[in-house]
Amino acid sequence: MTTQERLKTQPLSAVAHVKVHGRTTGALAPLTLFWTGSAVEFNVQGSELWIEVEADYEVYEPWISILINSVPVSRQMLTAGRYWICVFRGMNENAIKNVRVVKEVQAMSEDPACLLQIHAVKGDGEFLPVADKPYKMEFIGDSITSGEGTVGAKAEEDWIPAWFSATYNYTAMTAEALNADYRVISQSGWGVLTSWDNNPHCNIPRYYEQVCGMLTGERNEALGVHTANAFEDWQPDVVVVNLGTNDGGAFQSPAWRDEATGETHKQRLHEDGTYNEEDLAAFEEAVERFLGTLRKNNKKAHIVWAYGMLGIPMMPSIHRAVSSYMRKTGDRRVSVFQLPNTTAETVGSRTHPGVLAHERAAQALTGYLHEILPR
Amino acid sequence: MTTQERLKTQPLSAVAHVKVHGRTTGALAPLTLFWTGSAVEFNVQGSELWIEVEADYEVYEPWISILINSVPVSRQMLTAGRYWICVFRGMNENAIKNVRVVKEVQAMSEDPACLLQIHAVKGDGEFLPVADKPYKMEFIGDSITSGEGTVGAKAEEDWIPAWFSATYNYTAMTAEALNADYRVISQSGWGVLTSWDNNPHCNIPRYYEQVCGMLTGERNEALGVHTANAFEDWQPDVVVVNLGTNDGGAFQSPAWRDEATGETHKQRLHEDGTYNEEDLAAFEEAVERFLGTLRKNNKKAHIVWAYGMLGIPMMPSIHRAVSSYMRKTGDRRVSVFQLPNTTAETVGSRTHPGVLAHERAAQALTGYLHEILPR
Amino acid sequence: MTTQERLKTQPLSAVAHVKVHGRTTGALAPLTLFWTGSAVEFNVQGSELWIEVEADYEVYEPWISILINSVPVSRQMLTAGRYWICVFRGMNENAIKNVRVVKEVQAMSEDPACLLQIHAVKGDGEFLPVADKPYKMEFIGDSITSGEGTVGAKAEEDWIPAWFSATYNYTAMTAEALNADYRVISQSGWGVLTSWDNNPHCNIPRYYEQVCGMLTGERNEALGVHTANAFEDWQPDVVVVNLGTNDGGAFQSPAWRDEATGETHKQRLHEDGTYNEEDLAAFEEAVERFLGTLRKNNKKAHIVWAYGMLGIPMMPSIHRAVSSYMRKTGDRRVSVFQLPNTTAETVGSRTHPGVLAHERAAQALTGYLHEILPR
Amino acid sequence: MTTQERLKTQPLSAVAHVKVHGRTTGALAPLTLFWTGSAVEFNVQGSELWIEVEADYEVYEPWISILINSVPVSRQMLTAGRYWICVFRGMNENAIKNVRVVKEVQAMSEDPACLLQIHAVKGDGEFLPVADKPYKMEFIGDSITSGEGTVGAKAEEDWIPAWFSATYNYTAMTAEALNADYRVISQSGWGVLTSWDNNPHCNIPRYYEQVCGMLTGERNEALGVHTANAFEDWQPDVVVVNLGTNDGGAFQSPAWRDEATGETHKQRLHEDGTYNEEDLAAFEEAVERFLGTLRKNNKKAHIVWAYGMLGIPMMPSIHRAVSSYMRKTGDRRVSVFQLPNTTAETVGSRTHPGVLAHERAAQALTGYLHEILPR
Repeated sequence: MTTQERLKTQPLSAVAHVKVHGRTTGALAPLTLFWTGSAVEFNVQGSELWIEVEADYEVYEPWISILINSVPVSRQMLTAGRYWICVFRGMNENAIKNVRVVKEVQAMSEDPACLLQIHAVKGDGEFLPVADKPYKMEFIGDSITSGEGTVGAKAEEDWIPAWFSATYNYTAMTAEALNADYRVISQSGWGVLTSWDNNPHCNIPRYYEQVCGMLTGERNEALGVHTANAFEDWQPDVVVVNLGTNDGGAFQSPAWRDEATGETHKQRLHEDGTYNEEDLAAFEEAVERFLGTLRKNNKKAHIVWAYGMLGIPMMPSIHRAVSSYMRKTGDRRVSVFQLPNTTAETVGSRTHPGVLAHERAAQALTGYLHEILPR
Repeated sequence: MTTQERLKTQPLSAVAHVKVHGRTTGALAPLTLFWTGSAVEFNVQGSELWIEVEADYEVYEPWISILINSVPVSRQMLTAGRYWICVFRGMNENAIKNVRVVKEVQAMSEDPACLLQIHAVKGDGEFLPVADKPYKMEFIGDSITSGEGTVGAKAEEDWIPAWFSATYNYTAMTAEALNADYRVISQSGWGVLTSWDNNPHCNIPRYYEQVCGMLTGERNEALGVHTANAFEDWQPDVVVVNLGTNDGGAFQSPAWRDEATGETHKQRLHEDGTYNEEDLAAFEEAVERFLGTLRKNNKKAHIVWAYGMLGIPMMPSIHRAVSSYMRKTGDRRVSVFQLPNTTAETVGSRTHPGVLAHERAAQALTGYLHEILPR
Repeated sequence: MTTQERLKTQPLSAVAHVKVHGRTTGALAPLTLFWTGSAVEFNVQGSELWIEVEADYEVYEPWISILINSVPVSRQMLTAGRYWICVFRGMNENAIKNVRVVKEVQAMSEDPACLLQIHAVKGDGEFLPVADKPYKMEFIGDSITSGEGTVGAKAEEDWIPAWFSATYNYTAMTAEALNADYRVISQSGWGVLTSWDNNPHCNIPRYYEQVCGMLTGERNEALGVHTANAFEDWQPDVVVVNLGTNDGGAFQSPAWRDEATGETHKQRLHEDGTYNEEDLAAFEEAVERFLGTLRKNNKKAHIVWAYGMLGIPMMPSIHRAVSSYMRKTGDRRVSVFQLPNTTAETVGSRTHPGVLAHERAAQALTGYLHEILPR
Repeated sequence: MTTQERLKTQPLSAVAHVKVHGRTTGALAPLTLFWTGSAVEFNVQGSELWIEVEADYEVYEPWISILINSVPVSRQMLTAGRYWICVFRGMNENAIKNVRVVKEVQAMSEDPACLLQIHAVKGDGEFLPVADKPYKMEFIGDSITSGEGTVGAKAEEDWIPAWFSATYNYTAMTAEALNADYRVISQSGWGVLTSWDNNPHCNIPRYYEQVCGMLTGERNEALGVHTANAFEDWQPDVVVVNLGTNDGGAFQSPAWRDEATGETHKQRLHEDGTYNEEDLAAFEEAVERFLGTLRKNNKKAHIVWAYGMLGIPMMPSIHRAVSSYMRKTGDRRVSVFQLPNTTAETVGSRTHPGVLAHERAAQALTGYLHEILPR
């Protein structure tokens, strides 16, 4: 079509103004989006825009949402291959559109082949600067923060990328309400100390200082997932940690056994159903250590441990750990905030918080952070 | 990928159980979806499903939404070409999924090249029967019924397919609430007598008895858009007519002039801003005539003229016309219902009703129809 | 108590600034409140205020609400007798309080003994002027407008004053939203032509031009209920007529028989359940006549027939009558507006609209009137 | 009136079935209601019911609400004197009404003359038993729990009884949602250790074991306010403690000085605005001690420290104290729950939580307690 002829293609790395969201290695040729909520954002003055994506996977395919002027307009699965996707067309060529292409799905630690890259753009317009927002926020969490369950019927049970969303998510909603740029570090099933099934390797702190260290495989290695994250380049005003739900679940789950080494791990319950104090203490130490790691890398951030969208059994431990950390270090810029619980009315698919639960969490968290953020 | 090898491709016409929504010529090789809300629906027992689509256009591209178990999961622009789209993958192969691929955009009378076809399916599962719902509903309308403005930021002004939706639409919501299959006949800017800009050719009644007669061009002609619709094959319980908004607008717009013939048309205002009685009468006659056409083709339906989402200036005329029609014919199965107006809170893009306005309209209409539908 | 000693008593007629709401004869010694929503309003700079009321009844006792600074603070039954009621005490003596004592219950045409009077005030403060609001509205209606069912459990069935409210009522809510002074003329069970049980004497138009002509008995006569209302003193910008519900009900009710004269009346149904055309025509004539009466007395008002909180069976007739009236008279300042229907969620006691139904009606009506009121 | 003649008067102590809510000495001749939410409840089969009340005060007058079949119907100030109040009249004499007369205002520790008593009843009906609800709950709190600010315009600033309510209150809402009988122990401005202005005498624990020991004066003394509460007669399933807000406020307030003794007290801030650790520790010890007192008297209750409707500055201390108490005692039936904060949208008068804030708190607390209450 002649339409195509007037469009100009350029590699992403050559675009005058690109704003990348989410941790990366800095590479733009191509840009790899690892984490949920990671995105590429443009201000474009033109009638039409395409992006060239590359997707791959063995099991879990990537999904993206496209937001135009901050409103979600499309959301789609990216099947394997390298191809062009139209972001918009037929629009007034003089108006400046803000567009954001967002990775809807978490980093997939269990699928080394999972990949989402952006190679190039094609359009008839000019790329203009995208201003930074007044605040920066980092969210750290598990399936809740990955938006698992925000899409799909309540009856859905399959663990598939389709039911995840970065957009219908308390992270995006809170950042929008506070006018903040944001990043997300999250992994379904993981905790501070162990995963929901007692696997001690599946904890967020272990990989926090790498770009996306929980990803495996040669390709990810080559893409730099294990390189140290450049914290100095992006210092958040607030770090929200929404972890503990899977650490709590571990107490209710069977022991984990490493088939290779015979190693086992189990957070234990007493016979009366209460938590084993030693194992609780291990969790609390993990929380304390993680707070130290967070502070080391995020010097100016207020750290909020925000917990409660699927119950609050670990809340006393979280408070004890935070109190202990603050007493030992004198660090006063840490607090705990209870998020509203998910109800029969607000639940989504896979018995996870639904969009309504994320909206209520975002409202409560926004109100709380509003009083903490510098003005 | 080996995954692909275990998938079986078959033309849509060979699939054991296919449910098609919306007016068609009956052809399945391929299936052409003309109207917004038109869809293909399957019950599939399998882990993966793809569909082969073909899209074309000069100006206005088609969009689709995919609903899994009645919940919207993806929504995307279909760029020109013939290609495969993955509906779902990685799901439990034993569970039966209900999937619906829905045309999100109205028939595009101004783009003869606009085309959406479905050629084939590919998957690893069985296709099972899709039961008919207890009721059938037909919605007839203009941009409101086409869902114009239900997507996009309030500031959006471009007239592009992206801002339309059949899913976030009072038609789909009402049908869902009443457990009804439904069809939509709609065209932005059109009315009962004329379009918003006084063009007397742009009225829905003129094409109501054809499959999709407002479409032009050789390809559409060949696809059968001008063939008579097979009303006997799909008799609705309710016909909802949401027309009159553009007929009202015509009074406020300049005269239309046919450049070829010099013909002009204008619904006139008096100097004091009130409506010219003669022109109002012409509108009322058009309403009466259309009711006759509707009754002729929909013998058992209750016909509801449902109007008011963008104000009610034509309501007295609509009532007069309906009263007159009922008196002359003795037909008692016709009524008028005022839909809630759009407010600053519920407005969407392009100063059209937004999703909230559609939700409120659906609630009001559902309550009203609940008492009318046979039980 | 010494507190009492510093309070100064004065007859209402001697108070420097009194604002009376609702139709009266103008008498202030004492002031008789006839209609629901009638009220006495003060701006008081003082710490304490009492009013001396007199109440009487054979069957139906009066109730009042007290609003301080526009918010309802108390609501109570007035048992028979003449006594003092404390409006407020212990407040900052320097602040000016706006207080309004509102009659919560309709004029009781079936209890000639029912009486509510205000004789005097007692306080330690100054009475300051109460400004008129920018608009004046009159509401005319039946039990819906009398607020029947806005108080009490859904299961309540007794017809008693306790279940009525002028405050939790679409009339008060609409007037508040539009910043209007307002009056209410209403009577449960009455219509434009007949009452719900076909009594042709129980229609609002018959008494519209008197102060409160539907009240009977010597005391009411002496109080001036049958004197002509002084329309020239209070000209509304909008008259809202919410009548028709009982006229519709009459078709479903047995014939009314006047035991004295043997006279009977019945709005008839055809065997198929549709309305008898002759009887419908009588209703429509009554609507037309009443519009004439309203216009004669309210020269500048926009008249809105607002109907639908308990279904819309009479809507076609109302539209026909309004169209006919407008055509014959050339009066263009009349319109029809459909109010939202009551649902299982919004219903109150006695299967009447509850507070939620009144709130939704007020929202819709406010939006509609907002575009009609002069600015 | 003849109506009165058929009514039978009897002292409250002679009524066959009376249910009293709230702590009392057990006396019924008359019954004195001390605490907010205290009430007398009847099931009456009759057409009319009156109660004889006695009210007194120097400064703060009592208010009551009357609920019929669980719905608030009237709410009124009780001026000084002994007199009859009509609860209902004109109702179906065969239907059984549940009626509750509720004290709307807290015990007034600053007005020794404040009094509300119920002497007798008068009616034409039978009194039938009132069943106990399946659960019993006790709420302990400050102004929030006293419902300060739930009535009146946002701008109101006077500290007067009119702005308090036991009915539009999270206590009543939560108890209703959980189908529980409930009692309230609350006092505006008080805390666990000190009042908002650092007065160490104004703390709830000090008087918790007496009937209503914070009341002073000879009459209250004679009424038994200082006698030991009969905990054994009413053992709650849940004790909700909503204290800490004033203890937090004390850090921000000037020192309190006892004019008689010269004694002063002050919860101190560091220069950087953080809390003095020693004073925090004193608060935490007070929480621990109070938990001991609560457990001693409420053997089977789950104790929930529910805090947060006006911010959460004391939450870390509350958690530390609860953890410490649980560790030392082995008591596992204690937990902490964060209530939703009040927002600009939900605030009421006197910058206290409004009705909307109480509704949201009740929803959250109900959801939490639902999982804790034995089933």
